[in-house]
Amino acid sequence: MKVVKTIDEVKQAVREWREEGLTIGAVPTMGYLHEGHLSLIDRSVKENDRTVVSVFVNPIQFGPSEDLESYPRDIERDSALCRGHGADIVFNPEPGEMYKDGFSTFVDMSVLTEELCGLSRPTHFRGVCTVVTKLFNIITPDRAYFGEKDAQQLAVIKHMVRDLNMNVTVVGCPIVREADGLAKSSRNTYLSGDERSAALILSRTLALGRKMIEAGERDVRKITDAMKKNIETEKLARIDYVKIVDIETMQQVETIDRPVLCAMAVYIGKTRLIDNFSFTEGE
Amino acid sequence: MKVVKTIDEVKQAVREWREEGLTIGAVPTMGYLHEGHLSLIDRSVKENDRTVVSVFVNPIQFGPSEDLESYPRDIERDSALCRGHGADIVFNPEPGEMYKDGFSTFVDMSVLTEELCGLSRPTHFRGVCTVVTKLFNIITPDRAYFGEKDAQQLAVIKHMVRDLNMNVTVVGCPIVREADGLAKSSRNTYLSGDERSAALILSRTLALGRKMIEAGERDVRKITDAMKKNIETEKLARIDYVKIVDIETMQQVETIDRPVLCAMAVYIGKTRLIDNFSFTEGE
Repeated sequence: MKVVKTIDEVKQAVREWREEGLTIGAVPTMGYLHEGHLSLIDRSVKENDRTVVSVFVNPIQFGPSEDLESYPRDIERDSALCRGHGADIVFNPEPGEMYKDGFSTFVDMSVLTEELCGLSRPTHFRGVCTVVTKLFNIITPDRAYFGEKDAQQLAVIKHMVRDLNMNVTVVGCPIVREADGLAKSSRNTYLSGDERSAALILSRTLALGRKMIEAGERDVRKITDAMKKNIETEKLARIDYVKIVDIETMQQVETIDRPVLCAMAVYIGKTRLIDNFSFTEGE
Repeated sequence: MKVVKTIDEVKQAVREWREEGLTIGAVPTMGYLHEGHLSLIDRSVKENDRTVVSVFVNPIQFGPSEDLESYPRDIERDSALCRGHGADIVFNPEPGEMYKDGFSTFVDMSVLTEELCGLSRPTHFRGVCTVVTKLFNIITPDRAYFGEKDAQQLAVIKHMVRDLNMNVTVVGCPIVREADGLAKSSRNTYLSGDERSAALILSRTLALGRKMIEAGERDVRKITDAMKKNIETEKLARIDYVKIVDIETMQQVETIDRPVLCAMAVYIGKTRLIDNFSFTEGE
C-alpha cells in the first residue's frame, strides 16, 4: 500500500490499473478513521480489485466559525488502518494540491441542500460536491462508498452523480455505533467524559421517534415535538434541528405518507453531532 | 455514422470504443453548423479514432430575454455535414434527456466569468460549465474542441478542467471568417441584408485595435475609446462591450504589459455578435 500526496501519483496508478482491466473503489474520508470508515473500506475491498482511500480535511466544506483547525488528524494511524484493511492507496493531499492558486470552480446544488445541515451550514454541500467531483475525476472509481450517518450528504452525492451523468455507482453503508448506541464519528473525540454520556441523548431520542412511528403515529409535528422535548431533558444538549423529511427531496413533510428520513443535529457542549434513521412503510 | 437521442446510447458506444482501446474526440455544439464547427470536427477526426459531435441548444445557458426559442436548428443538415466530415456519432438529445425532473446540480465559476459576456449574461457560463461537464461525463473524450471565437468560453472551460481535475485536453481552434472578415456564427443567419453589411464593423474595428497595438500603443483606454468611436460610426450597431483583458484571468487591464484578449460584443439590430483577437508581445 502506498501513501501519496499528489494528484498525479493517483492518476498514474489509476491509469496502470485501468490498463490491466481492474475495477476501482473509492472511499472519500476526512481521516481520523473509525469503525464506520473501516466498514466502507472493507466493502470496497470486497467489491473492487483496487481501493483508494482519500484522507483530506476539506477546507471548503467548513464554515468560517467551524472546526477546520481543530478537526482531528492522524495520518500515521489512518495509514496503518488502511493497510490493515486492504486498501491499495491512501491519497493524503495538502490543501494547496487540491485547491491551486486561482481555484474558482464549484459544484453546487439547490433543493436537497436547503434543509437540515444545509440550512445550518450554508456553503457546506457546495464544498462537499466540489471535492467529491474532484476526487471522482482523480480516482475515476467504479464505485464510491459513503456512510449513512451523513444521510443528506449521501442523498446529495447520489443526486449530483445522476444530474451530472458521472460514471460511478454511489454505495451507502449502514451507520456503525458504539455498544451504547452513539453513532461513530471522528468528532466524538472532542467529547469530555460528561459530554460522552450526554451524547447518548441522540440515539435514545431517535429510538423514541422510531417507536412512535412504529406504533402508528404519522403526524410529524407530534413526533418531532416529543423528540425535541426529550433532548431538552439533557442539560449539555442544544438542538440545531430535529426534522422528518422526504428521503428523496430532503424537503420537510407534515405526514409520514412516503419514505422519510428522521434526522437531527445536536450540540453537546461545543461539539455538533448528527444522527438519523430512515423509515419506509412495510420495511 | 449514427444520430442518437439518448445518453445511454452514447455511453454504450463509448464503452465499446474504450474496450477496443480507441481514443475519443468531442465537439460540443449548439448545431446549425458552419465552417467554424466543421474545422473543429476535422481536427477531432484527425487527432482521435472516434469523434462525437453533440448538437444541443442548451436552454440553461440562455437568459430569460435571450434567443433560445429562435436559435436556428436544422438537425438534418447538421447530420449530413457531420457524416461528410467523418464524425462517428451525432448526439442530439431533447432538453428533457439532459435535464431530468428534479435537476438541480450546477457547475459554476467566479473570476473568469465576471467580465465580458459574463457581465452581460450573468447565468450564461453556469449553463455552459454545467452542460460541458455533463457532456464530458457522457462522452469521456480524450480531447474536446472549442472555437476561439468564444474566447471567454474557451478560457472558462480550460480553467474548469484544471480546477476539477477532469481527464480531458481542451483544444482551442482559430476563428473561421467569411471572405469579407465577418466571424462565422450560427447567429449570422439572423441578419438582414443591411445588417449583414453593418456587421463588418466588428472585424474592422478589431483590425483597428490590433493596428494601434502593433504600432506600439499600450494604453488600453486609448485603444478601446478609438474602437468604440469607430463602432459608433455604424448606425445599426450598439455596443455591449469592447474590452481588453488579461488572457488568463479575463480581468480588465489598464496597460498592455502581458498577454491580452481584446474582445467585443456588439448588437447589430437585435442580433448580438461577438469577436476578438489575442495579443502577446513578440508573437
